[in-house]
Amino acid sequence: MLTINSFLIFEIKNMRSFASDNNSGVHSDIIDAIATANKDHAVGYGDDEYTQEAVQIFRDLFKTDVDVYFTFLGTGANVLAMKSSAQSFNSVLCADTAHINVDECGAVQNFTGASVKSLPSVNGKISVSSIAKELHCIGDEHHSQPSVVSITQPTELGTLYSIQEIKEICDFAHANNLIVHVDGARISNAVAALDIPVNEMITDTGVDLLSFGGTKNGMMYGEALVVLNRSLSTNIRYFRKQTMQLSSKMRYISAQFTAFLNNNMYVELAKRSNAMTKLLQSKLNKISQIKITRPIETNAIFAQIPVSLIEPLREKYFFYTWNEEENEVRWMTSFDTTEEDIESFVSCIKDVIG
Amino acid sequence: MLTINSFLIFEIKNMRSFASDNNSGVHSDIIDAIATANKDHAVGYGDDEYTQEAVQIFRDLFKTDVDVYFTFLGTGANVLAMKSSAQSFNSVLCADTAHINVDECGAVQNFTGASVKSLPSVNGKISVSSIAKELHCIGDEHHSQPSVVSITQPTELGTLYSIQEIKEICDFAHANNLIVHVDGARISNAVAALDIPVNEMITDTGVDLLSFGGTKNGMMYGEALVVLNRSLSTNIRYFRKQTMQLSSKMRYISAQFTAFLNNNMYVELAKRSNAMTKLLQSKLNKISQIKITRPIETNAIFAQIPVSLIEPLREKYFFYTWNEEENEVRWMTSFDTTEEDIESFVSCIKDVIG
Amino acid sequence: MLTINSFLIFEIKNMRSFASDNNSGVHSDIIDAIATANKDHAVGYGDDEYTQEAVQIFRDLFKTDVDVYFTFLGTGANVLAMKSSAQSFNSVLCADTAHINVDECGAVQNFTGASVKSLPSVNGKISVSSIAKELHCIGDEHHSQPSVVSITQPTELGTLYSIQEIKEICDFAHANNLIVHVDGARISNAVAALDIPVNEMITDTGVDLLSFGGTKNGMMYGEALVVLNRSLSTNIRYFRKQTMQLSSKMRYISAQFTAFLNNNMYVELAKRSNAMTKLLQSKLNKISQIKITRPIETNAIFAQIPVSLIEPLREKYFFYTWNEEENEVRWMTSFDTTEEDIESFVSCIKDVIG
Amino acid sequence: MLTINSFLIFEIKNMRSFASDNNSGVHSDIIDAIATANKDHAVGYGDDEYTQEAVQIFRDLFKTDVDVYFTFLGTGANVLAMKSSAQSFNSVLCADTAHINVDECGAVQNFTGASVKSLPSVNGKISVSSIAKELHCIGDEHHSQPSVVSITQPTELGTLYSIQEIKEICDFAHANNLIVHVDGARISNAVAALDIPVNEMITDTGVDLLSFGGTKNGMMYGEALVVLNRSLSTNIRYFRKQTMQLSSKMRYISAQFTAFLNNNMYVELAKRSNAMTKLLQSKLNKISQIKITRPIETNAIFAQIPVSLIEPLREKYFFYTWNEEENEVRWMTSFDTTEEDIESFVSCIKDVIG
Repeated sequence: MLTINSFLIFEIKNMRSFASDNNSGVHSDIIDAIATANKDHAVGYGDDEYTQEAVQIFRDLFKTDVDVYFTFLGTGANVLAMKSSAQSFNSVLCADTAHINVDECGAVQNFTGASVKSLPSVNGKISVSSIAKELHCIGDEHHSQPSVVSITQPTELGTLYSIQEIKEICDFAHANNLIVHVDGARISNAVAALDIPVNEMITDTGVDLLSFGGTKNGMMYGEALVVLNRSLSTNIRYFRKQTMQLSSKMRYISAQFTAFLNNNMYVELAKRSNAMTKLLQSKLNKISQIKITRPIETNAIFAQIPVSLIEPLREKYFFYTWNEEENEVRWMTSFDTTEEDIESFVSCIKDVIG
Repeated sequence: MLTINSFLIFEIKNMRSFASDNNSGVHSDIIDAIATANKDHAVGYGDDEYTQEAVQIFRDLFKTDVDVYFTFLGTGANVLAMKSSAQSFNSVLCADTAHINVDECGAVQNFTGASVKSLPSVNGKISVSSIAKELHCIGDEHHSQPSVVSITQPTELGTLYSIQEIKEICDFAHANNLIVHVDGARISNAVAALDIPVNEMITDTGVDLLSFGGTKNGMMYGEALVVLNRSLSTNIRYFRKQTMQLSSKMRYISAQFTAFLNNNMYVELAKRSNAMTKLLQSKLNKISQIKITRPIETNAIFAQIPVSLIEPLREKYFFYTWNEEENEVRWMTSFDTTEEDIESFVSCIKDVIG
Repeated sequence: MLTINSFLIFEIKNMRSFASDNNSGVHSDIIDAIATANKDHAVGYGDDEYTQEAVQIFRDLFKTDVDVYFTFLGTGANVLAMKSSAQSFNSVLCADTAHINVDECGAVQNFTGASVKSLPSVNGKISVSSIAKELHCIGDEHHSQPSVVSITQPTELGTLYSIQEIKEICDFAHANNLIVHVDGARISNAVAALDIPVNEMITDTGVDLLSFGGTKNGMMYGEALVVLNRSLSTNIRYFRKQTMQLSSKMRYISAQFTAFLNNNMYVELAKRSNAMTKLLQSKLNKISQIKITRPIETNAIFAQIPVSLIEPLREKYFFYTWNEEENEVRWMTSFDTTEEDIESFVSCIKDVIG
Repeated sequence: MLTINSFLIFEIKNMRSFASDNNSGVHSDIIDAIATANKDHAVGYGDDEYTQEAVQIFRDLFKTDVDVYFTFLGTGANVLAMKSSAQSFNSVLCADTAHINVDECGAVQNFTGASVKSLPSVNGKISVSSIAKELHCIGDEHHSQPSVVSITQPTELGTLYSIQEIKEICDFAHANNLIVHVDGARISNAVAALDIPVNEMITDTGVDLLSFGGTKNGMMYGEALVVLNRSLSTNIRYFRKQTMQLSSKMRYISAQFTAFLNNNMYVELAKRSNAMTKLLQSKLNKISQIKITRPIETNAIFAQIPVSLIEPLREKYFFYTWNEEENEVRWMTSFDTTEEDIESFVSCIKDVIG
């Protein structure tokens, strides 16, 4: 859970930041794509050629006829996924660290009426055995009935499920009548890090629903709910409208996605971001006061630092604390992080350490 | 209620349309404002200087210290307004034609748990007397308790409440412990048509909450809930997060609004749109087969046309039917409608009439 | 809608009343049935022999293998019916006078998230044509999609749908993919008045769901949702638990229903109640100051009386006003109304008239 | 969490059971009180003298002017308490074993839209330190905001909070702007076991809301939400109606409570139940194959027994398994458990052990 003591943060101008990959700007190709789509009129709400084109690219990418529902933001895609998988008497199983559990102000519970059941996780990952423990009282009306497992790839802690682990979760879930959702707010970073095509990670393992993120990797706004198990699609467009995720000028989301997915741009941007994290890690390893606390597999570094350093450092580089009791902070790189940014940040850390 | 028989509409390319003002594109100054804001990093979720600036402009405009909550879309602003004004046992009073009643797929009911009570309207307008009729059983737990009146300015039918009418509704509502919300998805067009500053229309009449639209008048996405009665603000930022209306890269909405409001751009664009409707009206008046059905006060024309003309005409210019039984259709102009568009459209109508 | 000005009503002791059939007591046979069931232990939540027996009686009565879900109250049965028939993006069609529309404080909207769409009614009845008018925009995600029609038999105004009318509504609804629910809070009175077996009224006409009332006709508490279309049953027991309608000591509801249905008791009690209304009607017809306003078909009389008489009369006999503007009041008889009660009440009216 | 493998349980007739205190019958004095109240008419929905009397008894008992809301069942009282304490963006803190967390099929989440956050418990009890750990991110809109702590007295495991522990939780909670709710489905057993007046346990410690149970200790149906912090009462009666907890023939709940509370009957019944548990405990202690697993403080015994014994024993005495992995079962005594019941049950256990 991300916390910060001071809210006087809009003084910071023209900053470079390691706070979150959503503090970064928009890739210039995305801006260009928007400008290019900005001609004449287009029918609203997705009945336009830009959306048609973007959906086709998703289908090509996943090598199957997925349904695609563009939303404004990642929480929207997650809630839509849960609404299509859970009724009010169901429960949603996820990691205790999951975004749907801690970072969405209860949007899933509020919109679905269902319960969110958090499972213990190790570095953000849950296992088949932790899911299995929740599968009692099936058919007993006194207890919320599990209907969906949601995992995050990469996790909130920047770690990754292997293809094999995803497949095991899918197989176990399906054998127990559970639907599998992947929260892929940073799925690009997972694809880049594992160096495996997204269809092998998602389609071939049997994932039913994927929240495919764009905003944290160079887009302006817009995410996509990718429905691989199309039997779940029946009512999603009504739910999308009702959850206030249906954009009237949809073409401007669609055009972003087309640019984002074409020519593997989404993977290339994530590769850069992941590489910058590796670079930062290599430099932090040499600073004895900083202790890296989690496996580094994508674009996030979690580290314990002396508590006296946190505020002085934050004054210069805004970032979030992950665990206040442990003085554990989070630093993230973005598609637009440069080697100079890394150098300056490390310099600054060294200055603050003194 | 807008209907259309055919969904095969994405064949239409590079079209000019009179279907809706949200089929238009984005004004080039808005695109420029987005591009200009696209530098360096900015703290997410509105804690950035662009948002601070945009909020200040709203305060200047309304000549009072309003709270401003940017949302992704107009339904989001409306739902936030209702959530801040109604508990689950309350009812929301609005015109039978209101967007919240017919065009939001039940989002208000679903998110607030409250009832939406539709009142009979004349050309989209409700009156104090129709509101008064709903004020019985106050304090009786068997009946949903009215807590808010929502009016639309301009209405779904393009008509306008006068300043005096708004004030009367506010006075009556407040005397009866009701909150007043204005759905201003096209508030720019009302300001332009009445030629009265928005603060005189909204602040001075006593409106509590205003959904201030941008998307239908040249913005890409983003609306604003303007809270004039700040006692209603207490929990809105939580509700905004939970309703999935909190943009992470908020600066791109804020920068649009700054451009939109500066130099009276929002009024100028609406004036053009309104003027194009007047021009179209003057030409349609000369076509005997077309009967205009509603007072024309902003940028919408409702007209009865021979049923045999509807489909042939729609093939060339996409638009919606308003009332199928009456062959009543709706045509709207936008900020980017040109005199040539009007000429071409009228020509086309004449051709179809033959 | 029922209203009353004064809430100082618990002064009234040992009263006889024409306010509502739920102001009456409990039939002594029902009390006896409860006492008889009160021996030893029974498994909770309906897994007991009393419930098994009561369900079988319902199956015999409806001449088909209905599912039966006992609830605490009529609103509970109605909400369960709607929850099994409507998702959050659906709408429920009913008369403007329907209990679910005006007398349940928005319980249906709140629990289902769906919209309740009220149709104009004549003496509480809706018609196929009024339903047909709501069937536009089908498949259009902007608009709540109708999924269920709910009618009340007898209506809130004491009137009746004929068998033929019910059948026509069912046929039309099913042809349009709508489910039919009957709110039968006073179904006993309808069966008694029409003198037709309940299976011919409900099973044979094609009704999908019936709220079968007991409390208004001599039971202490408890209603039943009778599911004739068992495909709707899939999740009802979860919904019943979640809506707080699952009684732990279920046997005390079941035993009441067994007594209520055995030996046609429910019809006999209703016949008495209906007969007392006829008697009252015959006497009121002779009082020129009282104008009966609705067809009298079951156990309710609606009448206009001089406004000056309302409060003096209510001081002696508590009752509700139906329509304040029209001075229209409602008087109801119960299973325990006696001829002496009628005599005394009419005497009292005459005294007040003076 | 209570589980059972076989659902073929309604074969059991005239049984004596240690499954749950809600499998018992109704105390004869309660039946008598109902019968006595069954005369003439009474105004519905609680505006009757029986309810007035019962409320006064609660006020005398708690030695303060509490508000009292009768409901049909305990889940109803709990949900009302949460609805008056939590908005949709709030979270409810409770033990992982709490009834609201595991045994109400998500009713709290569904009706309030809030999140239920389960805290680790020891024998069903939570501590100030476990509550304190949840108090981060206060004021941060991304995270559900804690607003209420709910504890269960006695706990689901039959254990008790001391007066001092309740007071500490209340003091800590109030210092942190949290409301305190006590789920007292079996509060009678706590009062009996601690031998302290209920006002000292609840009023004097600062509890805000209490669900006061009756059904598990000799009543037929009906529970009470006791509101000590009356500032929370503002909207409860609307919520009670909307949650389908408002009984029309309220007098039959009120009359039960009057009998239940008069002459300390509720404590006397609980003392008997607690004493029977002590007797059973003393006999089980002598059986080496049975290992009691929790402190025994009220009327529940949790014990590990050889797995091979569970089904044979359950065939004769129906009961629930608490923890399947551990072969831990639950046995409960009731107000009507006799010494002969204990003897027979222990005999039966010995027979099964062989």
